[in-house]
Amino acid sequence: MSNGLKSSKERVEFLKKFIKENDADAFFINYLPHVFYLSGFTGSSGYLILTRNRSYFFTDFRYKIQSKKEVEKFYEIKIIKKFDEIFDIFKNKKKKVKLLFEKENLSYDTYSNLRKKKFLKVKPVSSPVYKIRMFKNKEEIEKIKKAQRKAEEVLKKVVESLKPGKTKELDLASEIEYLFKKDGFDISFPTLVASGRNSALPHAKPRNVVIKNNTVLLIDMGSVYKGYHSDMTRTFWVGNNPPDWFKKIYRITLDAVLKAEEAIYEGKDAKEIDAIARNYIKEKGYGEKFGHGLGHGVGIEVHENPSISPLGKEKLRKGMVFTIEPGIYLETKGGVRIEDLVYIDKNGKANVITRFTKEMIKI
Amino acid sequence: MSNGLKSSKERVEFLKKFIKENDADAFFINYLPHVFYLSGFTGSSGYLILTRNRSYFFTDFRYKIQSKKEVEKFYEIKIIKKFDEIFDIFKNKKKKVKLLFEKENLSYDTYSNLRKKKFLKVKPVSSPVYKIRMFKNKEEIEKIKKAQRKAEEVLKKVVESLKPGKTKELDLASEIEYLFKKDGFDISFPTLVASGRNSALPHAKPRNVVIKNNTVLLIDMGSVYKGYHSDMTRTFWVGNNPPDWFKKIYRITLDAVLKAEEAIYEGKDAKEIDAIARNYIKEKGYGEKFGHGLGHGVGIEVHENPSISPLGKEKLRKGMVFTIEPGIYLETKGGVRIEDLVYIDKNGKANVITRFTKEMIKI
Repeated sequence: MSNGLKSSKERVEFLKKFIKENDADAFFINYLPHVFYLSGFTGSSGYLILTRNRSYFFTDFRYKIQSKKEVEKFYEIKIIKKFDEIFDIFKNKKKKVKLLFEKENLSYDTYSNLRKKKFLKVKPVSSPVYKIRMFKNKEEIEKIKKAQRKAEEVLKKVVESLKPGKTKELDLASEIEYLFKKDGFDISFPTLVASGRNSALPHAKPRNVVIKNNTVLLIDMGSVYKGYHSDMTRTFWVGNNPPDWFKKIYRITLDAVLKAEEAIYEGKDAKEIDAIARNYIKEKGYGEKFGHGLGHGVGIEVHENPSISPLGKEKLRKGMVFTIEPGIYLETKGGVRIEDLVYIDKNGKANVITRFTKEMIKI
Repeated sequence: MSNGLKSSKERVEFLKKFIKENDADAFFINYLPHVFYLSGFTGSSGYLILTRNRSYFFTDFRYKIQSKKEVEKFYEIKIIKKFDEIFDIFKNKKKKVKLLFEKENLSYDTYSNLRKKKFLKVKPVSSPVYKIRMFKNKEEIEKIKKAQRKAEEVLKKVVESLKPGKTKELDLASEIEYLFKKDGFDISFPTLVASGRNSALPHAKPRNVVIKNNTVLLIDMGSVYKGYHSDMTRTFWVGNNPPDWFKKIYRITLDAVLKAEEAIYEGKDAKEIDAIARNYIKEKGYGEKFGHGLGHGVGIEVHENPSISPLGKEKLRKGMVFTIEPGIYLETKGGVRIEDLVYIDKNGKANVITRFTKEMIKI
């Protein structure tokens, strides 16, 4: 599994085995990222039912033409008018159909409605899709790289055109997203641009304020290429003379990134990597100022497994793609976060996807 | 209720009454749009617990400062490291706490985990928040109007600057979103720009293709102002001589909008309004070509209640805000959709928020 399941077909075959192993008849998938992962469909309304020998895709009128184009050919496409029609395919079975569902993704409401259907026996399972999608194949890593390269190209461009005392946070954020969209890339998440003390808010929203001279500038951004996300944060000093406090926390954050990346190796616990960065920042006296996890998986969603945090449960494996993003946030001064995207390559080591320099840049 | 509950405080008071009426002790809210509606918080991680006499807000380290700024002052803010800590507030109670949850929004997984907690007795309820948020107050309608005005200003601008044979679909879509973001408006949904036959796909994605002369151009767009969405579709003819088929389906679609808007009146069934437009289009011979609902509520989400469709269950009431958006889609030629945003005013009639002309424009 460590190389990632190559095609939708292979992924579906894996789930059909899972159905058998669970002594069930079918699997209902209602979570859009999983619908995309298993069928290729990118619209906002789609459902799958996999049985031991058939594969069904359901959508509504709005996606009639799009689904014909996008959905893998081994699916039977059905256009429905209301949600309940999905389960009509089982109505005439002689025996109750044992239907698995992803317990993470079905609402209590839908669950209790399905339970009322006499021809169904619904059974919650911890979704195996979350597990298999952690392991990326070559093509998936290439897509993530392409999304990341675009983000780097755009970051370089907007940083070069920045005019301290004139450019606003919102100008930068909107320009970044414009440059993604114009070339057909989607936006991984709303771009964060935080200057001055706002950089101490790990999830600051861009404001209608000018980026001043002699201040911190933190940018957290990502694009999406063919469904695959990227994620990168860089922190800059606007001006020629960064103060000592900034140089100090920048150096510590950067060293925390480097130490974590160096320690990454197949078989290690994800939380062990988190601890390396966390303990280092703590030793340096800023433990309280780094309150979030070290990183998260990236792929068909911008936040996915594995979690590289004190709560992380996974062991690192070949083909995993995740961020390393420690930060130090000083409420009254500003913050620094440096975020790389890495994957574990065939040698079991961290391969850093991000090429944008991590050295401190003065704008 | 028809005027919309004015403040977060009033909304929370309403829910506290609901807790009492259900003979319960507390209500757990995990759905972000409802967290925003009840507390003002706009981040990506937040939960509420309302008890009969207290109001708690939970988030993580990343939103420590933001939550202090945004969350209504009557909430007690708690920063948590993991989800389960939310329920620690009930740990030392002598009796089991009867905790309501929104059955539409809690996953089966979380439900079954909460059920295992010995100090809780969890009970699913059909969420009353969906009901109260249908009724907008003055301030909410003003915000929606502001979002809509911005969209109109931007649509005017991009249509004027369009160069047939040169401008690409992606250029238009990215320009629209840039103009929203730059001025601090969010994007209601990914902008649809569809030219030529692609306009026959109700949810077409903008492509990297030039908008040619003598073709249909359909644009579906919306911005967000302070959490409130707008939604508008206009269809244009690029060129001087629209063909008869286009003029014909444009006229029918436009008449369907006008007939539906005229028929809107407090107390009518939402599905009755859908039927007026639907039957008219059917009469004209295009029934099969209009396969989606006539409209949907708009507010803190771009799709919310009431549903103006054959499946719509609501009666129209003062303060409701929704779209009227019939369409006729000819697979081999192109499509037309015209979408207005309306609200039911104090006289019980449709007040059309959208000011952008519905007459056919040749670009």
